[in-house]
Amino acid sequence: MATHSFEPTVYHAAIGSHDPVLTIADGDSVVTTTIDARGNDATDTQVHPGGNPQTGPFYVKGAELGDALAVRFDRIMPNRRRGFTGTVIAERILEPEFVRTLPPRSLGQWDVDVDRGTVTLLEPESRLGRFTVPMEPMLGCFGVAPPRGQAISTATSSTHGGNMDYRGHVQGVTVYLPVAVPGALFHLGDGHAVQGDGEIVGTGVEISMDVQFTVNVVKGSNIVWPRTETDDYVMGIGNARPLDEALQYATTELLRWLQERYALDTESASIMLGQTIEYDIANVFDPAYTVVAKVAKRWLDQIS
Amino acid sequence: MATHSFEPTVYHAAIGSHDPVLTIADGDSVVTTTIDARGNDATDTQVHPGGNPQTGPFYVKGAELGDALAVRFDRIMPNRRRGFTGTVIAERILEPEFVRTLPPRSLGQWDVDVDRGTVTLLEPESRLGRFTVPMEPMLGCFGVAPPRGQAISTATSSTHGGNMDYRGHVQGVTVYLPVAVPGALFHLGDGHAVQGDGEIVGTGVEISMDVQFTVNVVKGSNIVWPRTETDDYVMGIGNARPLDEALQYATTELLRWLQERYALDTESASIMLGQTIEYDIANVFDPAYTVVAKVAKRWLDQIS
Amino acid sequence: MATHSFEPTVYHAAIGSHDPVLTIADGDSVVTTTIDARGNDATDTQVHPGGNPQTGPFYVKGAELGDALAVRFDRIMPNRRRGFTGTVIAERILEPEFVRTLPPRSLGQWDVDVDRGTVTLLEPESRLGRFTVPMEPMLGCFGVAPPRGQAISTATSSTHGGNMDYRGHVQGVTVYLPVAVPGALFHLGDGHAVQGDGEIVGTGVEISMDVQFTVNVVKGSNIVWPRTETDDYVMGIGNARPLDEALQYATTELLRWLQERYALDTESASIMLGQTIEYDIANVFDPAYTVVAKVAKRWLDQIS
Amino acid sequence: MATHSFEPTVYHAAIGSHDPVLTIADGDSVVTTTIDARGNDATDTQVHPGGNPQTGPFYVKGAELGDALAVRFDRIMPNRRRGFTGTVIAERILEPEFVRTLPPRSLGQWDVDVDRGTVTLLEPESRLGRFTVPMEPMLGCFGVAPPRGQAISTATSSTHGGNMDYRGHVQGVTVYLPVAVPGALFHLGDGHAVQGDGEIVGTGVEISMDVQFTVNVVKGSNIVWPRTETDDYVMGIGNARPLDEALQYATTELLRWLQERYALDTESASIMLGQTIEYDIANVFDPAYTVVAKVAKRWLDQIS
Repeated sequence: MATHSFEPTVYHAAIGSHDPVLTIADGDSVVTTTIDARGNDATDTQVHPGGNPQTGPFYVKGAELGDALAVRFDRIMPNRRRGFTGTVIAERILEPEFVRTLPPRSLGQWDVDVDRGTVTLLEPESRLGRFTVPMEPMLGCFGVAPPRGQAISTATSSTHGGNMDYRGHVQGVTVYLPVAVPGALFHLGDGHAVQGDGEIVGTGVEISMDVQFTVNVVKGSNIVWPRTETDDYVMGIGNARPLDEALQYATTELLRWLQERYALDTESASIMLGQTIEYDIANVFDPAYTVVAKVAKRWLDQIS
Repeated sequence: MATHSFEPTVYHAAIGSHDPVLTIADGDSVVTTTIDARGNDATDTQVHPGGNPQTGPFYVKGAELGDALAVRFDRIMPNRRRGFTGTVIAERILEPEFVRTLPPRSLGQWDVDVDRGTVTLLEPESRLGRFTVPMEPMLGCFGVAPPRGQAISTATSSTHGGNMDYRGHVQGVTVYLPVAVPGALFHLGDGHAVQGDGEIVGTGVEISMDVQFTVNVVKGSNIVWPRTETDDYVMGIGNARPLDEALQYATTELLRWLQERYALDTESASIMLGQTIEYDIANVFDPAYTVVAKVAKRWLDQIS
Repeated sequence: MATHSFEPTVYHAAIGSHDPVLTIADGDSVVTTTIDARGNDATDTQVHPGGNPQTGPFYVKGAELGDALAVRFDRIMPNRRRGFTGTVIAERILEPEFVRTLPPRSLGQWDVDVDRGTVTLLEPESRLGRFTVPMEPMLGCFGVAPPRGQAISTATSSTHGGNMDYRGHVQGVTVYLPVAVPGALFHLGDGHAVQGDGEIVGTGVEISMDVQFTVNVVKGSNIVWPRTETDDYVMGIGNARPLDEALQYATTELLRWLQERYALDTESASIMLGQTIEYDIANVFDPAYTVVAKVAKRWLDQIS
Repeated sequence: MATHSFEPTVYHAAIGSHDPVLTIADGDSVVTTTIDARGNDATDTQVHPGGNPQTGPFYVKGAELGDALAVRFDRIMPNRRRGFTGTVIAERILEPEFVRTLPPRSLGQWDVDVDRGTVTLLEPESRLGRFTVPMEPMLGCFGVAPPRGQAISTATSSTHGGNMDYRGHVQGVTVYLPVAVPGALFHLGDGHAVQGDGEIVGTGVEISMDVQFTVNVVKGSNIVWPRTETDDYVMGIGNARPLDEALQYATTELLRWLQERYALDTESASIMLGQTIEYDIANVFDPAYTVVAKVAKRWLDQIS
């Protein structure tokens, strides 16, 4: 149960079977940093080309094809003050005729105050003034090496995780990822100080992060899609286009989880989920959209 | 500002330019009832064939093409104890290969206890036992007559409202609907004692209701899609397939609303919504899916 | 087997249970006319507001719920020289970012020469010059009254037919439509002198038509979606969004047809269609898209 | 203009920046072989795990980022007699409720007779008998290395080409692919003796092939998606889900090509394509669907 401190010097624009930067044991923790979506570090200096460059990969001893890698995010905290966002809702998220009227895209600057827990717009000419929202730091992109020799761009996501851009991936949550190669090869990056549903301007408040995470290997778990667990919810995640298909994967993965963990047949799980399921639209910007299907543990407690 | 009491004797399986059952003035309220999705009334007696039969239409004096009809739901309350639900998640919501394994569909029975505010499963043989959730009564289907002589099935929804099956349409909310014909011709029905996101088993807990609503004509409003307002949120609603397209309509309608009410340009609205928008998936079962794009008034208060 | 001559004086902007304009017998033919999409007749005079106004409906004696109405188009011929088209590919058919660069929409004028069988662009300032294509006259919109009291806009299509905008619906083909009300109530309109796949500019060469058609009632046929038959092909038609779903309906309807007509089990039909099926994209402009799944009779002849 | 003879010994299950197996010059031809989708060679012996293993990659001297690699397929010819197909239409291609009735999947065997040019079913127990179709050999999967260090599974396709499964990719056509890395790194495989539109059973008649192809580097071409040219057509190809999005990419790429080659403005190109465009649905089985937008050169000849 060691805690490793790791300072990254290389980054990856695709999640794949790259040489590991560190080998860790089942149960170990890592304290490290991530650079922002454009490749800028804690000093806002660009150290890698943009596109969600990833810290890692970390080789987890004992992780094998058919296992799940459980990653608990113990800490996700911005390590500088300046963040940036897109300024125009993406074309694909608006009625096509409305797209003809869109202004050009630029970047908005935000001040991230970790002590006060606030994120404040720094665009004095904007009608919004010093618009301020609470900080809710999250990681937009992380995952394990995919199967069959693939290296998947950190612009997108799939069964291996990737650029899911889910605002619910904050510190305290545990994510389960399907292991496809020995050691799992965990990558992480793309921190957001805060983000709305859907990542509709193509960004959260993009920023570099201090991160601590802890890994556990779940043997023989045979999950298909990522799963996320919090104190209050269990969640299935689907990454695909269109949204309908992402929702199919998320719902089916949640259903499989309930069947495994609570021995529910399909009909019982359907009856319960029919009146209790909740959906989050994580992103509708990336090449694969992300939908989260979740159910509150307070309902599951009635049947455990 | 009269309050009318209306006992329905005819129902409609399509929302269209039917003969009005009552003419009311701008500002009036109506106390009435709705039968359930299968056409059963407060005594659980079938009084009309199934398919979300509607009470109404109500002719609102002064409502004309180009106006919005604001409907406040003052009260939505089950008026019997027995409700029913589907028991199998719909095929289109699951991975296609998983569909091969689905059990046959049947109906589940629930006890709705208005005094205790609970909804309890009555399927003793189920693994779920007497599974209980809080009652959150809502109306699944309501709307105004659509344009160009259409009569649109109450199975589906469009710009006129219809079968949106949004769990957020509870008492206390106000819905704005685009008026297409003189008098607006408001219809309502399809009550649910509770419903999960997405209406994934094809039903909420279907039940007959006592309803009170109040209408107001908003002159020259020129809304395109339904809008919903609560104490805490403003919402745009999109009804279409696939989900992506419903989301486009919902997002664009919300954007137009912010532009009108707060004089926000597209860029300012984008910057704000990018970090604050929330989406609800109302239904992914009906012929048109329904997505709700909403933003909390606490963010809008910063710019008003 | 009478042939009726019918001169329309009323038109409908929705396909529904309107009063019939003429009652005809099973096997009868009708010689009539249709006005163009904007409501202009053979003299190019507007006689009805635009939006694919329909001639009819025709009441076919003996047609009942559960039957199919077979309509053979004996003749579809432009009855004036001037046609018009859209000039810009629709926003939804192009990459969303490309939409930002689109020019405004206008109307292009074309000369339709029935004797020479040509359609020629009349836009002297265009880079295209007198661009000419062969005439292939078709009907974009026709159908029977839908079920449950619906009246469906002639902008769209569904199981009842409607605005399918399929370039293959030329003279000589037979279309089978699912009867939902007594008499079927057949409507027709929206002629095109020619049209590309997809109707991507939102129009073919829109023009008024002389039409002759012959009806036959197929008792107890229980088709779900429209089916089309030519000398060379049998076809299933699906009308929905997105294209994927239209394709599902088209493919399944074709499969059902093969199972009924050739007593093929699902596996045999799959093996054959897998290597012989052809798809046409009829329209990707209307509120419901239309996909045609077809198989050549020369393959079916091997198994009959 | 050398012609190289190359006998493969390694194969790849992803298209990426693997070590080249041969370096060739601009204008050179290669005579080689491909193994079938399951990794079986001309003797029907499995020499690599299944999943469309690719021959190559071939390094083309002078090809750089921003160029297009033009690949002409001079010859595509089955090199053994036995081919196989899927036997059940894929779940996602049928109405979801119909999926409940599907039989289990198996493999069908076919005899490919190169001399007679026929493909004949070898399933004596089938209702189809010795069902026979003409041979039309094609390559389902080929492409160049994608950008940003990606290695993309040969199950799917994207801007780099990949598993497009287009029945039009027969001998005689030229395909243009966007070069992302030095040398382009061309891969090829997945031959089909024949295939229907959509690859709806998940296969064509899968078989190993003798292939000859010729490469040409088109400097500074900056194409975004693959383009295909035959004697009669120019085509843009889009690879994505849903079909609607694949169609957007295909249409926009064709439009860009017409703008470049014929100096057409968007409006003129729209007017012409509106009445002449044709669409092919290449595949609706793979993780990315493929749509082909094409226009006959006989129309373009009017404006050149």
